[in-house]
Amino acid sequence: MDIQQLIETMGRKARNAAAALAVLKPEDKNRALRCMADAFLSHRDEIKIENQKDMNAGEDKGLSKAMLDRLLLNDKRIDEMAQALRAVAELDDPVGEIFDMRVRPNGIKIGRMRCPIGVIGIIYESRPNVTADAACLCVKSGNAVILRGGSEAINSNRILARLMSEAGIASGLPEGSVQLVDTVDRAAVTALLHANQYIDLIIPRGGTALIKKVTEESTIPVIKHYSGNCFIYVDETADLEQATAIIENAKTQRPGVCNALETLLINRKIAASLLGKLAPILLGKKVELRGDPAVCEIVPQAKPAKESDWEEEYLDLILAVRVVDSLDEAVELINRYGSHHTDAILTKDYGNSMKFLTAVDSACVFVNCSTRFADGGEFGMGCEIGISTDKLHARGPMALKELTTAKFIALGGGQIKT
Amino acid sequence: MDIQQLIETMGRKARNAAAALAVLKPEDKNRALRCMADAFLSHRDEIKIENQKDMNAGEDKGLSKAMLDRLLLNDKRIDEMAQALRAVAELDDPVGEIFDMRVRPNGIKIGRMRCPIGVIGIIYESRPNVTADAACLCVKSGNAVILRGGSEAINSNRILARLMSEAGIASGLPEGSVQLVDTVDRAAVTALLHANQYIDLIIPRGGTALIKKVTEESTIPVIKHYSGNCFIYVDETADLEQATAIIENAKTQRPGVCNALETLLINRKIAASLLGKLAPILLGKKVELRGDPAVCEIVPQAKPAKESDWEEEYLDLILAVRVVDSLDEAVELINRYGSHHTDAILTKDYGNSMKFLTAVDSACVFVNCSTRFADGGEFGMGCEIGISTDKLHARGPMALKELTTAKFIALGGGQIKT
Repeated sequence: MDIQQLIETMGRKARNAAAALAVLKPEDKNRALRCMADAFLSHRDEIKIENQKDMNAGEDKGLSKAMLDRLLLNDKRIDEMAQALRAVAELDDPVGEIFDMRVRPNGIKIGRMRCPIGVIGIIYESRPNVTADAACLCVKSGNAVILRGGSEAINSNRILARLMSEAGIASGLPEGSVQLVDTVDRAAVTALLHANQYIDLIIPRGGTALIKKVTEESTIPVIKHYSGNCFIYVDETADLEQATAIIENAKTQRPGVCNALETLLINRKIAASLLGKLAPILLGKKVELRGDPAVCEIVPQAKPAKESDWEEEYLDLILAVRVVDSLDEAVELINRYGSHHTDAILTKDYGNSMKFLTAVDSACVFVNCSTRFADGGEFGMGCEIGISTDKLHARGPMALKELTTAKFIALGGGQIKT
Repeated sequence: MDIQQLIETMGRKARNAAAALAVLKPEDKNRALRCMADAFLSHRDEIKIENQKDMNAGEDKGLSKAMLDRLLLNDKRIDEMAQALRAVAELDDPVGEIFDMRVRPNGIKIGRMRCPIGVIGIIYESRPNVTADAACLCVKSGNAVILRGGSEAINSNRILARLMSEAGIASGLPEGSVQLVDTVDRAAVTALLHANQYIDLIIPRGGTALIKKVTEESTIPVIKHYSGNCFIYVDETADLEQATAIIENAKTQRPGVCNALETLLINRKIAASLLGKLAPILLGKKVELRGDPAVCEIVPQAKPAKESDWEEEYLDLILAVRVVDSLDEAVELINRYGSHHTDAILTKDYGNSMKFLTAVDSACVFVNCSTRFADGGEFGMGCEIGISTDKLHARGPMALKELTTAKFIALGGGQIKT
């Protein structure tokens, strides 16, 4: 079977599955999700064996530590994937939800009813737990999903998708609800991006090159998860103890993920005192500092930053640091160099916090906490299918509601328009 | 100035205006909208003179009655445009609205803050009141707007856009908030559709050819207002008096608009009795009936329908009529032939109403009222910028909320991720 045929066959299956999924009862979908979680736990060793193949290949290919960390499925992460499935099963079903009902002067009751989007294509790289999160959220929201993971995680993705699909079908989901494009041939991505007849929405997750390819090629609507060049701005009123703890956490707790801190802006008035506390801690944790001239003067171990450092997503133990004169300058730099993903201000000043929240044009804007909280799970959304850095339909962590649409409904009593 | 330069100049102006609009106080925007309404009323005669030029040209070009009706600006419609502006000024400002706030177990308060999208391009045909509605909703929601109307309404659009822009600037809006592409050269549309640097969203409103061109060419996200092939299904339990009144209203009250009825499905059990009442009324109002064989047998004046009649948007006094055996058949036909705009069921049966609401895959799904109510104004949204037949971001009438996006905000107290 050639690639075009493969995608069409998968698309047709998915379209049929979507029609059936849309009318399933919540409990039928939840039972399937719990069976998928059980399958992960009872096939734990198989998953680790398949993942080890990917890890070995990754090491041979010389993937970075951060990349290998993203690829790894250990017992803790398998438990987390199963827990995420169970947590989503516990959430309220978004489909059929009626909201915003109001009575018009003519007596018609007008409101909205939530419904699935249809068939969703997810194109992603490296992290195999995306396979579980994405499929689980699509099923719960009544959508069929076609998954296309990265070649470096093909063995992990294959076992996870197979376990979910089999457990789903065994517990009553329509066949074709969860499908993985099981080939590393890149032509499959192109075919997916032109399958308008079968796919309603494409969600790419991965590096800049992937996102660029997908948005330029796709004739299907796309919601992008662009890179996370996350900023923290420490203003002159910040609590320096607290700021130090938050910055250390945001940079070092898990540097390989998109909500990790990449660029630090410090108000000039407290630059020396903050860096006096912070720099030894970060350097002690092997964080490479790349600073502007003011930072390099305060911290001799810092390397001089290049222009490109302000817009780079390192996904590694590297931090760009810059001294600024004002909140306005910080906001301007964030909106210019940032990736509109997640940015935080650390401050004791009410006015500065409000101005930052309003003026920073990003999907997530935080006051006085770590950027690492930009995550569907942390937001109480169960788990997430990605973090949209687009502005339309979904912005920020995408979970169940973001995978649905809503029709207007009107309950009349014979009204005609006069 | 060539077209490319024209659009770039307009785009740059709009982008600057958007930054300033985003931080305007609600009252500043509302005052501008009220000044625009005043300008329409005090320049009523000028508007009618300019509109008459378009009407004359339209008659010379042989536009249909429905088209000419869409083009006409009489005293009533000028009053309505001014009233719509005032009504939108009275609505709550969507920008800065904070919603969905919740406290997470770690104490972080997480929620959303509504903000403008940026610069919106509207590409439309014939109806000049779109100029007023679109500009007004964009300004209220803090977006700059670039309008591109149809050549047949160029004189009407020019005076309306000029009055709004001048009144806006006089009352403190940034220059470039409301701009009309003042050329009938079609190259301007192509240039608009590739102005990604300046425009965040394109909303096309018009015939199938326009929408097709826009979606195929645009590199900017598009929300489509496709055609309105609206269906009514009359089930076997319907109140036939009420059904007759609703169908007459939906077909004849204003046949040239997108929420007018185009196709009628009737359950076989009541086909003869309903058509016995309904057909004489519709025929008396000069409605041409195009029926399937069963309908033609009951109504000798009906012409035989062709396959294409089931999917056509007439925008005229023509109605396709078909007899069906069941609700399932009706739903299947609506989802197959309809344009996913607005469809209604007329019934006394609770189960049928619920099934119809859930199973019909359209932007607006109604029970027991005229399809003519599918309208932002009727829904209490002030006025509308179009009716999205897409599923993403906005579905159905689009008004203020649909012209905004929302960022996540987090109010922390020093939390770090463990």
